[in-house]
Amino acid sequence: MPLFKRVAIVGLGLIGGSLGIVLRRRKLASRVIGVSRSASTINQAIRLGAIDQGTTEGSRAVTDADLVVICTPVSTIVPTAKHLARYTKPGSILTDVGSTKASIVSELQRNLPADLAFVGAHPIAGSEKRGLAAATHKLFDHSFCIITPTSKTNDRSLALIESLWQAVAGRISQMSPKEHDRLMAQASHLPHLLAYALARATDLRSLPEVPRSFLDMTRIAKSDPDLWDDIFLSNRSQLLEALKRLERQLVFLRRSLKASHATSLRNFCQQAKQKREALADPTG
Amino acid sequence: MPLFKRVAIVGLGLIGGSLGIVLRRRKLASRVIGVSRSASTINQAIRLGAIDQGTTEGSRAVTDADLVVICTPVSTIVPTAKHLARYTKPGSILTDVGSTKASIVSELQRNLPADLAFVGAHPIAGSEKRGLAAATHKLFDHSFCIITPTSKTNDRSLALIESLWQAVAGRISQMSPKEHDRLMAQASHLPHLLAYALARATDLRSLPEVPRSFLDMTRIAKSDPDLWDDIFLSNRSQLLEALKRLERQLVFLRRSLKASHATSLRNFCQQAKQKREALADPTG
Repeated sequence: MPLFKRVAIVGLGLIGGSLGIVLRRRKLASRVIGVSRSASTINQAIRLGAIDQGTTEGSRAVTDADLVVICTPVSTIVPTAKHLARYTKPGSILTDVGSTKASIVSELQRNLPADLAFVGAHPIAGSEKRGLAAATHKLFDHSFCIITPTSKTNDRSLALIESLWQAVAGRISQMSPKEHDRLMAQASHLPHLLAYALARATDLRSLPEVPRSFLDMTRIAKSDPDLWDDIFLSNRSQLLEALKRLERQLVFLRRSLKASHATSLRNFCQQAKQKREALADPTG
Repeated sequence: MPLFKRVAIVGLGLIGGSLGIVLRRRKLASRVIGVSRSASTINQAIRLGAIDQGTTEGSRAVTDADLVVICTPVSTIVPTAKHLARYTKPGSILTDVGSTKASIVSELQRNLPADLAFVGAHPIAGSEKRGLAAATHKLFDHSFCIITPTSKTNDRSLALIESLWQAVAGRISQMSPKEHDRLMAQASHLPHLLAYALARATDLRSLPEVPRSFLDMTRIAKSDPDLWDDIFLSNRSQLLEALKRLERQLVFLRRSLKASHATSLRNFCQQAKQKREALADPTG
């Protein structure tokens, strides 16, 4: 039994495209309708098996949809959702996949009509690659999805969104939008900021090859800046907090280096190593 | 034809052990003698095929050796080399695999006897794992070795060390010890420092799984602090310089975030992305 009859996916990029592929492959939806501003993207999505049909008119796609999933960049989720909310049918559910949650969830809870249930979600899956061409049924393998209900979240909708992501990603986790943003500032947004900073602070053109450690640490500096400036700003205060903590560590390290204080350095690194080793790491 | 008759490998850890395995597998040396303070490490190295025979007495291992390779942690390379130099035979060659070069090369050039040729080298291969148990013939696959001759380096020895690493790692690169240290501060030492700082600045225990981006960025925070405090201090001034450049980038990012300046953030990240994409990256 499909979880949903008609699902509208709004935004056919890496996440939207991959979600469509999985929904159709695993028959989690009877019909997947894609929305994109570009007709050629819609055709590509049909060819890739990501959607059954598509339209450039979001309003037409959502009128019969039981579920609307907003997969656009973070800064356009709220305006897109507000616009489409005028065309949804009673009882339909709206969700998103945005990388930040507090501002999106509070804006939408304030502004959506009462008969449209909203549940915020963020599948922790992605890639430094962007766009439909990189979409794959494997994107959500061994990933998990954070779902961010609030006191206003409707139980039936929450249960359905949980079932959706349980099926797609294999694992879900519930937390408040604020806790989500606090953790993602540390686990994803600060690492991206640092990767960009490290890539920009260095000049390795004269090396015939670059050590794997550097390549691994800067892989995500290949991520699309047009997506990431939005994410950084949308989680600005939590990211600034995480950055401040990091800068304090660097000040300590700089002072220890200047003073040639081996014990300080070693203890610092030992504590860091223990924290890192305590994390679940499927790559060993 | 083997490149060397007798090679003494002093220090049977990840690098020394892996080098021994490759020398023996590819018959680059007729006989490989291992030196370790621990008899059980010697036995383990024989079992792994890393050495033909071993001894805890470095002086005995080097008397007949045509090549002595010091594979001990950075801080013990110079004292170990000075000690063993008293026992080497005329015409033999001494080299090391230390992660920093300027201080090691200048110290050894000043202090070694005239009939012992020294060539500094640094194979850019490694792992966050440490010790003989992690040694493998694959460690140097698709890697390269930086060789750091100076005006005092003897031509015959340089040619032999180049042939050695050409055979073992597949690719070599020559540069001055100082240029090596400047580049490695950026490509390896700063990334390690940052990985430790990021792991220590964050607390992700409440996440059921950790995003791959974070795991990749902190993988090297699992590296052994006992090795890395030495490396950091041994390349202290270049590392401080690289750290200063990074901290400047972070100050810029912090200010742009505080001012919600999307264009600054985007341009910064765009420049970083371009620099990252210009690097050779076999992992795509």
